[in-house]
Amino acid sequence: MDLKKVFKPKSVAVVGANDREGSFGYFAAKYALAGEGADRVYFVHPERKELMGKPCYPSLSALPEVVDCAVLCTPGGTVPSLIDEAGKLGVKGSVVFASGFSEEKEAEGKRLEKELVSLARKYDMAVIGPNCVGIMNNIDKKMLWGVETTYEFSGNTGVGVVAQSGFITKYLSEAGFGMSYMTSSGNGNVVTIEDVMDFYAEDGDVRVISVYLEGIKKPAVFASALKKAAQKKKPVIILKSGRSKKGSAATVSHTGNLSGSGQVYDAVFEKFGVVVADDFVDLIALTKMFTHLGGRLPRKATLASLNLSGGETAVCADLSEKYGLVHPEFDEGIKILLTQLLPHFATPNNPLDATTGIMYDAESNKKIYKALLQSEDIGIVTTGVSIEAEKARTSDTQIDGICAAVDEVTLTKPLIVLPSFEGGRNPEYIKRLGERGIFVLTGGEKGYSQIASLIKFSQYDCAKKTLELALSDTDVKATETYALSEFDSKEEIKRFGVSIPAQAVVSSVGELEAALERDFGYPVVLKVNSADILHKTEAGGVKLNVQSKEEAVAAYEEILKSCRAYDPKAKIDGILLQEMAPKGLEIIVGVNNDRLFGPMLLVGLGGIFVEVFRDVALYPAPINRQEALEMLTRLKAYKLLAGYRGSAPLDIGALADLLVAVGDYAVANRDTLKELDLNPVFVYEKGVKAVDTVIVKYK
Amino acid sequence: MDLKKVFKPKSVAVVGANDREGSFGYFAAKYALAGEGADRVYFVHPERKELMGKPCYPSLSALPEVVDCAVLCTPGGTVPSLIDEAGKLGVKGSVVFASGFSEEKEAEGKRLEKELVSLARKYDMAVIGPNCVGIMNNIDKKMLWGVETTYEFSGNTGVGVVAQSGFITKYLSEAGFGMSYMTSSGNGNVVTIEDVMDFYAEDGDVRVISVYLEGIKKPAVFASALKKAAQKKKPVIILKSGRSKKGSAATVSHTGNLSGSGQVYDAVFEKFGVVVADDFVDLIALTKMFTHLGGRLPRKATLASLNLSGGETAVCADLSEKYGLVHPEFDEGIKILLTQLLPHFATPNNPLDATTGIMYDAESNKKIYKALLQSEDIGIVTTGVSIEAEKARTSDTQIDGICAAVDEVTLTKPLIVLPSFEGGRNPEYIKRLGERGIFVLTGGEKGYSQIASLIKFSQYDCAKKTLELALSDTDVKATETYALSEFDSKEEIKRFGVSIPAQAVVSSVGELEAALERDFGYPVVLKVNSADILHKTEAGGVKLNVQSKEEAVAAYEEILKSCRAYDPKAKIDGILLQEMAPKGLEIIVGVNNDRLFGPMLLVGLGGIFVEVFRDVALYPAPINRQEALEMLTRLKAYKLLAGYRGSAPLDIGALADLLVAVGDYAVANRDTLKELDLNPVFVYEKGVKAVDTVIVKYK
Repeated sequence: MDLKKVFKPKSVAVVGANDREGSFGYFAAKYALAGEGADRVYFVHPERKELMGKPCYPSLSALPEVVDCAVLCTPGGTVPSLIDEAGKLGVKGSVVFASGFSEEKEAEGKRLEKELVSLARKYDMAVIGPNCVGIMNNIDKKMLWGVETTYEFSGNTGVGVVAQSGFITKYLSEAGFGMSYMTSSGNGNVVTIEDVMDFYAEDGDVRVISVYLEGIKKPAVFASALKKAAQKKKPVIILKSGRSKKGSAATVSHTGNLSGSGQVYDAVFEKFGVVVADDFVDLIALTKMFTHLGGRLPRKATLASLNLSGGETAVCADLSEKYGLVHPEFDEGIKILLTQLLPHFATPNNPLDATTGIMYDAESNKKIYKALLQSEDIGIVTTGVSIEAEKARTSDTQIDGICAAVDEVTLTKPLIVLPSFEGGRNPEYIKRLGERGIFVLTGGEKGYSQIASLIKFSQYDCAKKTLELALSDTDVKATETYALSEFDSKEEIKRFGVSIPAQAVVSSVGELEAALERDFGYPVVLKVNSADILHKTEAGGVKLNVQSKEEAVAAYEEILKSCRAYDPKAKIDGILLQEMAPKGLEIIVGVNNDRLFGPMLLVGLGGIFVEVFRDVALYPAPINRQEALEMLTRLKAYKLLAGYRGSAPLDIGALADLLVAVGDYAVANRDTLKELDLNPVFVYEKGVKAVDTVIVKYK
Repeated sequence: MDLKKVFKPKSVAVVGANDREGSFGYFAAKYALAGEGADRVYFVHPERKELMGKPCYPSLSALPEVVDCAVLCTPGGTVPSLIDEAGKLGVKGSVVFASGFSEEKEAEGKRLEKELVSLARKYDMAVIGPNCVGIMNNIDKKMLWGVETTYEFSGNTGVGVVAQSGFITKYLSEAGFGMSYMTSSGNGNVVTIEDVMDFYAEDGDVRVISVYLEGIKKPAVFASALKKAAQKKKPVIILKSGRSKKGSAATVSHTGNLSGSGQVYDAVFEKFGVVVADDFVDLIALTKMFTHLGGRLPRKATLASLNLSGGETAVCADLSEKYGLVHPEFDEGIKILLTQLLPHFATPNNPLDATTGIMYDAESNKKIYKALLQSEDIGIVTTGVSIEAEKARTSDTQIDGICAAVDEVTLTKPLIVLPSFEGGRNPEYIKRLGERGIFVLTGGEKGYSQIASLIKFSQYDCAKKTLELALSDTDVKATETYALSEFDSKEEIKRFGVSIPAQAVVSSVGELEAALERDFGYPVVLKVNSADILHKTEAGGVKLNVQSKEEAVAAYEEILKSCRAYDPKAKIDGILLQEMAPKGLEIIVGVNNDRLFGPMLLVGLGGIFVEVFRDVALYPAPINRQEALEMLTRLKAYKLLAGYRGSAPLDIGALADLLVAVGDYAVANRDTLKELDLNPVFVYEKGVKAVDTVIVKYK
């Protein structure tokens, strides 16, 4: 499947082209002609002889050449036969606008889509849609677009946009990105949204990828696209919707429940350094910011912020702290400069209240900005300068100063206007700033969260990540499951390097005594080993804190007696003898094998608090040691691991190693594992121990 | 002090009026004349004979009448003598623009302000400023304003605005509120920001109070203003800055650290139902929303949301859940209507994806909105209709439909446009909607948080609140403190009804035996009772889990022996004998007596987790039972109290009673209490017990 046939077609057929304003056929014909290569745009209509000054052909077969892409503007029912005709001719690309396919409640729509997909596969044809509004290519000036738009070909700023909703694509196309490509992927069962992302990730004309995502179908392609983008340091900005489905809103009571799609997607995004947008306004602002900055990312996670009022400065400090943005103290050189330039009552703090003292002094503004732009300590410079609707002397002076500073240095870091107020944004100011690479962000709090995203992306280092998912090799998924015994569960993970308490299954007092002498210290635990007895404690099948061989022998006999009385028919496979591990900090570690993205690792504070505080981190396997350590730092409970208030630090390294081992186990068993729970893992000052383990596999 | 003299002056003197553009005297003179009552505006200038067509007088004393308000446009140094002159004449109001007062680093500025304050007190004069830009009164059309503004008198929508920063006031004055009053309170040591709020709370022309607040000086006035506003159901919207000071960012390790100003202010806001804004953009949007809605508050905390695209609907559902907004299922009548009007593939869910099926059908839009507006189940109706920059057929149709619906019903609930995108906002659309009471909110996520604020305010019921603060009666505050003994601390709170373990101090084995027989069951705890021995455990001064009289007697003697050996000079006041309470859920309860707002109650999950998860709620004393219960529901740990995953519910009522009792104790001791810690309080299925108590008082 060659996506170039739809994105960069040399020849295009518009099937169902017409002059009925408002119809797909009208807009598709009009926009196809508006682009480059109009001489190889052909109209197909069964009756018309001519349209928009061009001849019409009765069918695809009647065209003078085999086109790269057939744009189908006809109703859904006609689509399969047209695809078949096109495929037989050797057409390798198509855009299908019609709805009435798998998005319908009725079976007929689903059948139609199945037929379409099967034909596309047969002919290896790249089909965009159905139920889409088309694609735009601002590089080669092609618009295969079926609805009215105010978009016009313009300068290319390098954004590749793709959205699953046609309506959203329409708005995004009009948001002023100056993009390279825009795709409405629609139902997307042939060319999926992740296929388009992969095309963007590879395409040299795309520098930023911007996505409205409802869900994906080909995790391998999705991972491949994200990996390529990460390796090329192309920001991928995604607004993922559908986070609130009741399923994903459920509690974190066990790892299974955590695979609510929003959280799993976020875990995948974390691995690949995806920039997450919270709403459409955010998606647009983040896309514009990354596009505007190009590769000019901050080299340090530090800010210098300048405002002209104490109130703005106070709010700037508050919001910066809220989003973890750091304002280091200015170095001596800058402090001296500020003391020279600012009124005597100003204090050279960062964020800086420059006071209204330099409101009308462009030269001082210039000197200050220049110093901040040249300072090695500062990663990002922000300014609260107000971009007023009307031209105003205050804005004039400050923007003069900023622009003069930028004209005298090579801009090597982001310089961002972060207005306290949403003014009218005089376009002349925006243009002057924009020409110099200075970006004007959204006003208020959201701007701070966007800068935090910028810093996070700039600090993301794909070389330290595994950059892959442990996807299952088999397409067929079982549904029936079985649980391994406690003994077997622990032995399985032990083989991958997880530290567990010593354990043995014994079938006689002799075996018990021999095992105790050979492999165990005291205290130990004895438990009945029987798949038939689920409630072991109730059956009298558990003896904790056994302190000697004599106690152990007595416990052995009591357990057998008690369990036989409890359920005479139960099959008892001996007694499980275990070292009783000393208490440590209770951590829960788990794996849920997500049907889409493969095994997802979970780590969190154990006990009842995991349910109350939901203090857990999720990450897709495989995981390396660095990733495991980062996962732990995402926990609030990290404070407890690191040694809080004078208590000794716990063995974070050993816990990270355990996560890596569990990840390795999950990867090796990705075709059969359903879920795994280590609850709890005890973390000690030295070492860790998984004291209770449950593994559930698919039959 | 009569604020009417500055807000509603019948006569005004502009001292230092001049025609030097850009100066305070120029703008003050110009704007004073622009208002009503210009015939009683007098200019004072030592040399000028005439200005702007009016005669100038050489001094305040030379004016033909004693004015209500003297507006001083002269430099700081001249202010005290002018205030003195005005005061002697009987002038009772003044606005002072000059800076160079207490905001300066130098002592001279502070001295000048002290003199100003003392003169104002002497003459009972309401002085706004110094270091301010003035006041505007859009009711009586008065503008005592010293800097350039684009504001023009207009229709009054009832907002009273006050800010401590002049620069911010300027922006707020131009934000299009259509306000009643605008005040720049400046240094505000005579008329404080809370005095202005109190004036607004009383004034019949103010329906919404909007505040940018850095800090207050008169807590009693602040509380009074908030109480009046709450009782009149006037929304008070506050952006409080200075939340990020290192002090307030400190941990919650003990209650003292929690009085970081941001958290204490938030606790006060919670009691009085203040609407909290996060930034200036938010402050403006919230103010406009409440102003626009007038008293038309939602009667139910439920939403119906209509969008035209699946993507918008999905994001709407996600963001609603994020901010706790509830979309109930539509009733059968609405479902049937939707099924009739919408395409067959649409589903009548709430939030509703109406699909593009009714994009060009104003009549169907009207019917749907009308049904939603009339539904008893729905508190707020929101719509994602796009307010495009240019007039567009999509917007036209939908806005036609919405307006037609509103024209056919009496609008009794908020109808809010919540755009998914920040379009250009065609003013004609905004006007059509606005005329019908339909408000257009900010696009994206913030709009959802603003609706959550609207619901919270509408559900706030001041009749259920104490609506007061336990402010100290004495102005003089001690700094030296002392700690009560454990025994005395417990006895103090016991008198207020807090349940504590049985305790007694015994000084002989005979007393010990008698006490055990009379008042105690087993197990008990024995502790040395000595102010000299701080580390009781280290000194061998604690015996836990004592099970019998014999053990108790032995423990008694061991403790004495061990402590005497540990510190022969220590004064030992007998032995503290205590019931050893069984373990319950560990809750921490505390009081910190805030220097500004009086005793602040704290409750949270105890143990090490209070430090890791900071799961605490703060509330100003006094507290009633309802407030105590609400305080508990704000905790994540409330789940544990309410009975989580099959565990029995704990005695929430008893814990609430304990909070009320602790509040009563704090109120009664507000002049002497520094802090109180009950850590932990054990909460049981029945009852609670404060097992460890520390009280620190001022000497």
